[in-house]
Amino acid sequence: MLNKNVQTFLACEHEYAESRVVLFGAPFDSTTSFRPGTRFASRAMREDSYGLETYSPYQDLDLEDAKVFDGGDLDLCFGDTKKSLAMIHDFAAAIFQDGKLPFMIGGEHLVSLGTVQAAAEKYPDLCIVHFDAHTDLREEYLGTPLSHATVLRRIWDIVGDRRIYQFGIRSGERAEFAWAKKHTVLHPFDLQTLAENLAGLRGKPIYFTIDLDVLDPSVFPGTGTPEAGGVSIRELREAAVWVGRNLKIVGCDLVELSPHYDASGASTAMALHIWRELLLSLERDFMVRPAQL
Amino acid sequence: MLNKNVQTFLACEHEYAESRVVLFGAPFDSTTSFRPGTRFASRAMREDSYGLETYSPYQDLDLEDAKVFDGGDLDLCFGDTKKSLAMIHDFAAAIFQDGKLPFMIGGEHLVSLGTVQAAAEKYPDLCIVHFDAHTDLREEYLGTPLSHATVLRRIWDIVGDRRIYQFGIRSGERAEFAWAKKHTVLHPFDLQTLAENLAGLRGKPIYFTIDLDVLDPSVFPGTGTPEAGGVSIRELREAAVWVGRNLKIVGCDLVELSPHYDASGASTAMALHIWRELLLSLERDFMVRPAQL
Amino acid sequence: MLNKNVQTFLACEHEYAESRVVLFGAPFDSTTSFRPGTRFASRAMREDSYGLETYSPYQDLDLEDAKVFDGGDLDLCFGDTKKSLAMIHDFAAAIFQDGKLPFMIGGEHLVSLGTVQAAAEKYPDLCIVHFDAHTDLREEYLGTPLSHATVLRRIWDIVGDRRIYQFGIRSGERAEFAWAKKHTVLHPFDLQTLAENLAGLRGKPIYFTIDLDVLDPSVFPGTGTPEAGGVSIRELREAAVWVGRNLKIVGCDLVELSPHYDASGASTAMALHIWRELLLSLERDFMVRPAQL
Amino acid sequence: MLNKNVQTFLACEHEYAESRVVLFGAPFDSTTSFRPGTRFASRAMREDSYGLETYSPYQDLDLEDAKVFDGGDLDLCFGDTKKSLAMIHDFAAAIFQDGKLPFMIGGEHLVSLGTVQAAAEKYPDLCIVHFDAHTDLREEYLGTPLSHATVLRRIWDIVGDRRIYQFGIRSGERAEFAWAKKHTVLHPFDLQTLAENLAGLRGKPIYFTIDLDVLDPSVFPGTGTPEAGGVSIRELREAAVWVGRNLKIVGCDLVELSPHYDASGASTAMALHIWRELLLSLERDFMVRPAQL
Amino acid sequence: MLNKNVQTFLACEHEYAESRVVLFGAPFDSTTSFRPGTRFASRAMREDSYGLETYSPYQDLDLEDAKVFDGGDLDLCFGDTKKSLAMIHDFAAAIFQDGKLPFMIGGEHLVSLGTVQAAAEKYPDLCIVHFDAHTDLREEYLGTPLSHATVLRRIWDIVGDRRIYQFGIRSGERAEFAWAKKHTVLHPFDLQTLAENLAGLRGKPIYFTIDLDVLDPSVFPGTGTPEAGGVSIRELREAAVWVGRNLKIVGCDLVELSPHYDASGASTAMALHIWRELLLSLERDFMVRPAQL
Amino acid sequence: MLNKNVQTFLACEHEYAESRVVLFGAPFDSTTSFRPGTRFASRAMREDSYGLETYSPYQDLDLEDAKVFDGGDLDLCFGDTKKSLAMIHDFAAAIFQDGKLPFMIGGEHLVSLGTVQAAAEKYPDLCIVHFDAHTDLREEYLGTPLSHATVLRRIWDIVGDRRIYQFGIRSGERAEFAWAKKHTVLHPFDLQTLAENLAGLRGKPIYFTIDLDVLDPSVFPGTGTPEAGGVSIRELREAAVWVGRNLKIVGCDLVELSPHYDASGASTAMALHIWRELLLSLERDFMVRPAQL
Repeated sequence: MLNKNVQTFLACEHEYAESRVVLFGAPFDSTTSFRPGTRFASRAMREDSYGLETYSPYQDLDLEDAKVFDGGDLDLCFGDTKKSLAMIHDFAAAIFQDGKLPFMIGGEHLVSLGTVQAAAEKYPDLCIVHFDAHTDLREEYLGTPLSHATVLRRIWDIVGDRRIYQFGIRSGERAEFAWAKKHTVLHPFDLQTLAENLAGLRGKPIYFTIDLDVLDPSVFPGTGTPEAGGVSIRELREAAVWVGRNLKIVGCDLVELSPHYDASGASTAMALHIWRELLLSLERDFMVRPAQL
Repeated sequence: MLNKNVQTFLACEHEYAESRVVLFGAPFDSTTSFRPGTRFASRAMREDSYGLETYSPYQDLDLEDAKVFDGGDLDLCFGDTKKSLAMIHDFAAAIFQDGKLPFMIGGEHLVSLGTVQAAAEKYPDLCIVHFDAHTDLREEYLGTPLSHATVLRRIWDIVGDRRIYQFGIRSGERAEFAWAKKHTVLHPFDLQTLAENLAGLRGKPIYFTIDLDVLDPSVFPGTGTPEAGGVSIRELREAAVWVGRNLKIVGCDLVELSPHYDASGASTAMALHIWRELLLSLERDFMVRPAQL
Repeated sequence: MLNKNVQTFLACEHEYAESRVVLFGAPFDSTTSFRPGTRFASRAMREDSYGLETYSPYQDLDLEDAKVFDGGDLDLCFGDTKKSLAMIHDFAAAIFQDGKLPFMIGGEHLVSLGTVQAAAEKYPDLCIVHFDAHTDLREEYLGTPLSHATVLRRIWDIVGDRRIYQFGIRSGERAEFAWAKKHTVLHPFDLQTLAENLAGLRGKPIYFTIDLDVLDPSVFPGTGTPEAGGVSIRELREAAVWVGRNLKIVGCDLVELSPHYDASGASTAMALHIWRELLLSLERDFMVRPAQL
Repeated sequence: MLNKNVQTFLACEHEYAESRVVLFGAPFDSTTSFRPGTRFASRAMREDSYGLETYSPYQDLDLEDAKVFDGGDLDLCFGDTKKSLAMIHDFAAAIFQDGKLPFMIGGEHLVSLGTVQAAAEKYPDLCIVHFDAHTDLREEYLGTPLSHATVLRRIWDIVGDRRIYQFGIRSGERAEFAWAKKHTVLHPFDLQTLAENLAGLRGKPIYFTIDLDVLDPSVFPGTGTPEAGGVSIRELREAAVWVGRNLKIVGCDLVELSPHYDASGASTAMALHIWRELLLSLERDFMVRPAQL
Repeated sequence: MLNKNVQTFLACEHEYAESRVVLFGAPFDSTTSFRPGTRFASRAMREDSYGLETYSPYQDLDLEDAKVFDGGDLDLCFGDTKKSLAMIHDFAAAIFQDGKLPFMIGGEHLVSLGTVQAAAEKYPDLCIVHFDAHTDLREEYLGTPLSHATVLRRIWDIVGDRRIYQFGIRSGERAEFAWAKKHTVLHPFDLQTLAENLAGLRGKPIYFTIDLDVLDPSVFPGTGTPEAGGVSIRELREAAVWVGRNLKIVGCDLVELSPHYDASGASTAMALHIWRELLLSLERDFMVRPAQL
Repeated sequence: MLNKNVQTFLACEHEYAESRVVLFGAPFDSTTSFRPGTRFASRAMREDSYGLETYSPYQDLDLEDAKVFDGGDLDLCFGDTKKSLAMIHDFAAAIFQDGKLPFMIGGEHLVSLGTVQAAAEKYPDLCIVHFDAHTDLREEYLGTPLSHATVLRRIWDIVGDRRIYQFGIRSGERAEFAWAKKHTVLHPFDLQTLAENLAGLRGKPIYFTIDLDVLDPSVFPGTGTPEAGGVSIRELREAAVWVGRNLKIVGCDLVELSPHYDASGASTAMALHIWRELLLSLERDFMVRPAQL
């Protein structure tokens, strides 16, 4: 495993062997078509994580009670998309092999393809829970099948029909929405129908991918393709925690923070808020000290 | 008509003759008293429009099915307010003469005076629907009667009492609010009473002017005079689409985006969101393919 | 009193002798642990206050009808925390001695310790109303008992158990929340239970301290330690005005605006909005012209 | 005279009556064609002047020994160019009438027209020393004769042929350079031939106008129209001090700082450096304590 | 040829058929390893070119007298490096086939590989003149042979030993400098030995590639990998003009402007300065009106 | 020694025991009076160091051949100046005790007081070589004797008369320059007389402190108190390398980078350039492989 010469995320200084969750960064944005810069997300989040508390009053849980390994960032090959995806896949596959849960920080959304491939190899009945502003269901984009705008279509190539549950979607081509009606389960605009629509997934292995641009740009301007009309931070936190607590997550990611586009640091703070709350919800049953609320 | 050496708005590459709507920019901010920069709005919106989809899942309509001509930007005379307003007036008057609908991108709010003058010449019974944070009803400002802070007062000079319907207003002098009680129809703070208050205007010719600072600065920081307490992007979109669908709009504008004050690009994305949704609502009945939702 | 060579806040040009409220800035941020810069708040607010109207349509009150003295900024000693707090204390004590109400603009939150000490000397039964994202109840931080992260604990040293009413709190160590259960009155996350929980304080002398990071970072990114999940500008305005109208405020402050971290100016506009509305609510009963709404 | 409710420039707190030099700001940029914002220059310079020392080791002179009145900023009428120029003219004329020297801080370059008009009324044999990147000699620009791009042509209307000495010029239309050969004295690119070319002006009344974009954009990026290839800060300081010490300056200005375009503050620091050194060179013979170097 | 729906560079509105020089943008930065964003260069340069004059007092030449076609930007495939290079090659090859001179605006430096390949196909004895801060001679970088850090090595694969003349180089691995001693002609640190070292190339077909980071970061901060110690804008202009006037340039490019990293716009202004002067030097002998200096 | 959970500077991953030089950060800026933020310098430099090459073509030396330990950052106590200086002193003293050379990255200039105190305890005949824009010789500042503006005066308290050699100084009070004539050796404005003036120090123990604002703000805008008129990066590099090669340096520091004030990253790149070149010059005689130039 990685983790040499890296300053870890807040409270994630545990050894690989003793950890159930493995954090790592996938700093890749070579296919980003509008505004690049998500490569800086994992570094910005690590640095600013020290402005956060380890304790969550929302869940009455404390990161100090969890055991998380931070593997640092993969050294991806900018400009060589296939090679980069292979590196992500191999790293995630090793984590799955060791019975651990990979928690990846993007990078652009395409990085999810590497981890999902590895997850599907281990869990053939894998389903996807997907929060996003965009459908990401194009067959190809700018002449390539491997793009941030096609990633969910590529994931569908792997998992098949009606295995991808999409929420918060508010942008795409007309054809993508039409295609989704047949092949995925798409709930547009917000996350409010989450619990009812995902009830049937309890117990099944789930990969959970959050494109942070599901948030409104007023909440999260630091992203490559801001799309007006998104959800609030409260709505995202509550939905993410619901998923973490109620479904059997086998892997997850947070993608599309582009920190340089929000010099105030607020977008990075939003990403870290979701990171902490999701991580705590995943680890709740494995902690030293249970919640008291 | 203009349109030489200009990169048009997304999907607005149609010819003048075949188009019902004519877009153009009025990059003028010479009377702006606090922070100038709205002159950059139309260029920023054109460039960033390519980060947008042409399709709206909110209305199930697609810009690809509309025919819109983009006339480019007027070459206004910075520092000579009267001359600039005359140029705007003449350009809009020609559009009205050709039976088309001008859709202007400001610039500061004063530019609306030019288009409204032209509209009123064609439609003597013109009414105004006005979304804004500010009353803009001063008799004069900094010693001049022609200012972004007086523009609705000047428009009142043209259309007269009780013909201006103001919504979202939350800033002005005490005297302006008092004056409005007699001369305009002013609904402060939000857009929620829109439908009931505008029902009587159905069928009448309406000029629709949206000062984007009606949005809260958390949503739209990129403006010259941010005023806390405004509406959300959802509230503005729904209100704008209601107006576009239910009233007989003969001309409209979006003003007061100052893109350099929001380096994240989120404010420009917000402006483009309203631009697309309003444009689609105006064109809905003239499109090749009707909505399916 | 101070006030030499200073451009005052909008409409605050009255003489000290004739004023009931005394504004002053405490530009100090030496203990800020994450991102400094609150020292620039009072200057930014004075300058940008001229982009504001004096009239509030929310309260139908006008700053032109109030008499407020702006004392300018204290010349605090960066790096010498005790000396700086002593200067703040002495300045506030003189204001109290003259029967006036100090309204301080921070600076970091620690500056409140100076004014509260002075207030408690005059009002032994002083209670504190505290809006904040953070508990600020650590016994010490980075090895010092005097820090922005300990300020409410130091204030508790002065006023004692159950005299501090905390609202909007959403960040702190687990131990701080536990400590608060015994020693303060803490309402987490929002301001919605304000009226019911503060009803018992009517008539008692209150010091009101607003850490503006109680606002969500989407509303107020210009602060040193942005913490996701806060309240909206409307919720804060309504709560602040409720406090100003219903309780007997003897002193107050607004702290933790760090204007350089929000180049759009929106955060400064938010701070000024609360400043104007709180100031009007405090002065309502002392104004020349009463509200008409 | 003005000067109410203004925080003065560093060390410029003297009374009008006892001062020989009168500082004032002319915050006007309505004709700026590319990037507005010079209106913020005088405020930014006043605020940041407190980061400067009053003492110059270059000249061994100290602002503490000079008597300078800071009149604050004129309240100019954005969008009404003629009215604004008239206000500047009248203010400067009053200063000339009192036998004092106006030192104006722009604003865009057009503001010089107001002060030069007033100067020429008092000194019919007035000559102009002009440092700039641009010729500013167009007959009209964007349809108006009153523009930042025409200001020296308008000044030529007043002072006539061969009375304008231009240095550092590196940008203009071919026709402007050709026109200059007949009507002004133009030394392109740098300031190195200054002493030899201005020797004949000793004793004559001189108005000295410095467009700070004569500096290279690497030195001074905070300006509306950055033009590569300019002089260094040392070359400008030495030239400005030479002019201040060797010629009979009756009025002067520094124009075209646009501080928001350089968030680092370096451009404002550069402007202040020239301001202090020029002011000291003008006041050298009128100071309490002479230089010792 | 391209050029649909594009706002051209200043004064480059001529038809393809009548032009000798063909401008085009190659907005590609997928292999950039440190800070991406050069994709925005051509758009920023086109927009800001309107702040420039067409006339150069340095050369007494005017762009109005040249005939230049602006082909707009290629639609490159982000993330697919080979495909993007092939598109660049094909576009340049068509220009060469028509006997014209391609003038490319990057993009990262790797884009030069496409144009050089096309140039070498037409001119087998092609030599390269290369201005840069970096050697760019690695055999591979981050696991790929196609990278901004390997581009000159790939070009060497095409043109062979001692055909690449490198100037201004001040950064690279020790091994790269050693390799250069055998295979290229490398003059480190500055451009001062240019004329003597390139005299032997007169008459030979030359591709001229300028990585703008040859400029010092004080002059040109808006680039992906700022490297201290570079040349001044004057040194670069004079060297570029020397090359344009004295050598037989068959193709050229300007690469590595990353405009978002310099919000002041100064870096873009620097790039445009070199663009205009180089373009004029290339076109001098083909112009309507000769220089008069 | 420190160094837990830190990402080290480029190529500084050696063990403490085997290293001769010990890097560490002193992120402290509590006494900064104008613009704080130097606390972010060491983190920014570590992160951006990976954009640098390890090899210097200026000296033909490679960091790969040196052995340097990076101790990470001290956890200083913001707001408690004495305690912070004591921590710095103790850390440096331990390094001296182990016969190693401390290389500190500030923070504000006051941090040098801690290391110099430790150095003087070991080397009673210590001399100081000091590059700076400012004299830093005030007896006290804002009421405190411990300030960035007094640090050299406090160092004089330790080392006594004529033991401090100051270069590049261009800002201070008249009284400071007068005081310096008696008590230090001050060469104003530039570094050009360095070699002749320091020749007598060969062989004596020297502490070398570089306030990076000795650079001109055009080169180094990212600093708290930009002062026009400084040296170029070449002049500073050559002077620093001369000192490193010719004098017996026992400790050194680089202070006053404030990276957030230069979002382009150029200032950080400049600081890293000096860091690498100085470090190589110090280590030249201790390296595995000697220079070949």
